[in-house]
Amino acid sequence: MRPVITLTTDFGLSDEYVGLMKGVIVGLAPEVCLIDITHNIPPQDIAQAARIIQHSYPFFPRRTIHLVVVDPGVGGERDILCLEADGHLFIGPDNGVFTGPLDDGLVSRCFRVINNELFHAPVSPTFHGRDIMAPLAGQLANGLDIGHVGPLRDPAGCRRLQLPRARIEQDQIIGEVVHVDHFGNLQTSITPDDLNAAGVRKALEVIINDRNHTAELASSYCDARTGELVVVINSRDHLEISISSGSAADHFGCSTGSPITVRRPPGSKRHA
Amino acid sequence: MRPVITLTTDFGLSDEYVGLMKGVIVGLAPEVCLIDITHNIPPQDIAQAARIIQHSYPFFPRRTIHLVVVDPGVGGERDILCLEADGHLFIGPDNGVFTGPLDDGLVSRCFRVINNELFHAPVSPTFHGRDIMAPLAGQLANGLDIGHVGPLRDPAGCRRLQLPRARIEQDQIIGEVVHVDHFGNLQTSITPDDLNAAGVRKALEVIINDRNHTAELASSYCDARTGELVVVINSRDHLEISISSGSAADHFGCSTGSPITVRRPPGSKRHA
Amino acid sequence: MRPVITLTTDFGLSDEYVGLMKGVIVGLAPEVCLIDITHNIPPQDIAQAARIIQHSYPFFPRRTIHLVVVDPGVGGERDILCLEADGHLFIGPDNGVFTGPLDDGLVSRCFRVINNELFHAPVSPTFHGRDIMAPLAGQLANGLDIGHVGPLRDPAGCRRLQLPRARIEQDQIIGEVVHVDHFGNLQTSITPDDLNAAGVRKALEVIINDRNHTAELASSYCDARTGELVVVINSRDHLEISISSGSAADHFGCSTGSPITVRRPPGSKRHA
Repeated sequence: MRPVITLTTDFGLSDEYVGLMKGVIVGLAPEVCLIDITHNIPPQDIAQAARIIQHSYPFFPRRTIHLVVVDPGVGGERDILCLEADGHLFIGPDNGVFTGPLDDGLVSRCFRVINNELFHAPVSPTFHGRDIMAPLAGQLANGLDIGHVGPLRDPAGCRRLQLPRARIEQDQIIGEVVHVDHFGNLQTSITPDDLNAAGVRKALEVIINDRNHTAELASSYCDARTGELVVVINSRDHLEISISSGSAADHFGCSTGSPITVRRPPGSKRHA
Repeated sequence: MRPVITLTTDFGLSDEYVGLMKGVIVGLAPEVCLIDITHNIPPQDIAQAARIIQHSYPFFPRRTIHLVVVDPGVGGERDILCLEADGHLFIGPDNGVFTGPLDDGLVSRCFRVINNELFHAPVSPTFHGRDIMAPLAGQLANGLDIGHVGPLRDPAGCRRLQLPRARIEQDQIIGEVVHVDHFGNLQTSITPDDLNAAGVRKALEVIINDRNHTAELASSYCDARTGELVVVINSRDHLEISISSGSAADHFGCSTGSPITVRRPPGSKRHA
Repeated sequence: MRPVITLTTDFGLSDEYVGLMKGVIVGLAPEVCLIDITHNIPPQDIAQAARIIQHSYPFFPRRTIHLVVVDPGVGGERDILCLEADGHLFIGPDNGVFTGPLDDGLVSRCFRVINNELFHAPVSPTFHGRDIMAPLAGQLANGLDIGHVGPLRDPAGCRRLQLPRARIEQDQIIGEVVHVDHFGNLQTSITPDDLNAAGVRKALEVIINDRNHTAELASSYCDARTGELVVVINSRDHLEISISSGSAADHFGCSTGSPITVRRPPGSKRHA
């Protein structure tokens, strides 16, 4: 079976950083298939990295190794983790990037990476992605037993972020924008379960920047005309606010963290 | 033979969208070679996608599968097509992205993709790239017979765009900018055949934004000094207007759609 | 052994240019592993390409083929080179992009690429990357003997750039910014050897834009608090000036070429 390694970083694509990690990996695991998830995580944005990897890994084959290098503490005292969760492997700093699998209780084994025989010497204190994590990924891809990377560690002690979740108050769903995508779509923290719990079905009212908008939950973007509001359940299975053939972020002046409230339209009946 | 799949989208590189398509593909076709053509098609710009794929596919080996996901109608009533043309396979929405092979009469077989046994369930109505087109590409790469994707369809009924072509009026070639590349070069709709038909050979006059410029058709960019106008036949075999070591788009204030007129310089003789 | 080819260009990622080079390569060498170093070299910036490839190639396995297409003289009289250096192969224009291996005296064989039987016909005078260099790389990856590309050439006659090096004047190290990375870190021309030669050890004074800053040479970025100056030896083994969790380029108003002076703090003793 050809090994697969994914890469998720905040390195951007203008420097040699991503290429060097791949060079180190392919020198150790020549048959590897390398797949970029993204290198445009905003610098040091651990929460964004956590969300991206949580939503991405289930679409890769089992035994994929996911390398997540958003690591503002590089060279400091934070640990480097190697997790086995849900049949996948994860390598990255212990700073919250693996909140998803940790919160979901899916971690079967967790190791602290300390076996420096596996590293690329000398280790630069500013680039553990190249000198520690990439060589580790390459060697795991090449068949190294995960037990060699270092001692077991209790996943309960690993760092987790408080990722925003919507809450329900008096039939209102209080959520927020968690990501603005390339198209300007507003991905929110609101789930189909939240809609059910608040008795919202097809018709809904959305409050964005203190302005109320009535809408229907659409089944796809093209249920609306160009420039109109579209509210859908997106491919991450969350509520998303879009403008047909436009940028909702520009239209509403929203960005990550902007509050989004959803409720039944005034006068409508509550659904079961 | 190792299968090759190319990807052309308007997804950008900041979200997980491209990575997820690749994850789905590699789970189905582990040996595949994945090549990005570009993911920076302007959002919903079907014409740009059509031009890019038309100019690109001939440089890939036969049997390459070209996945084109510029799909503003995702989740709506547009079909998804699987075409066999000129020895290549093409998968994408029926919205004009395959105008090139369709116009050239190179389509040997055309199918409507409807066999949902081949899809990634559940299909998100906002991301058919991940849940329909990527799994299809992966399975075709893995040897699935194209006849299983759905019923045959008459290519004559597929959607085509009217891509701009230059026309000749009174020995003037009336064209336009069809693409501004990364260097700011102005790629035009004017072909060497148009130049011949208008009797233009080496010396020419170019009218950009109502201003006339005399130039010689150069054999390469470096026939001019820094900052000078260069007119060449580019690697897409079309007339291109450049500024040596600069951006013609900035210099002339042009963008896609700007009119470009070319003719023999005043007083020059017509060539055969 | 699976062949590896790296690509470094100024093509950006919005056009089909990079994808076409890969298509040509994979048609000739189906098993190849293609790795992008970067395609965001600023247009025509040969010095940046030279630095990137010099710092990158040692992290790839031996026999890797490095394709460097930053080529403002394409179609003109500059040669195309194929170098063997330090166990790697390099293909690119003779314009200084290979200053690193040439300066280091590591070139074992050097060839002028002229054997047009190896090219992709017809050769576009504006895209030798696609029509000359990519086919050459593909065929070398596929086992072609390097001796077939053209006649030997004396590396002493190849074009080199004067890459900035720091100099020491009266115990001051006079350097400059050679690259601003994605995080806004200022990579300088100053090496650990320069620090030793000037007797600078842990404590130092940095002069940026005529303003003096005292600092300690940190072992990593996280030795400082958010917003503070950090001076480290970076992963390229050069002195780098950073702002913890911020952009030093923005903070100091610096860009490539900005002068950077380093010395012992006033009153401190000289170190051996």
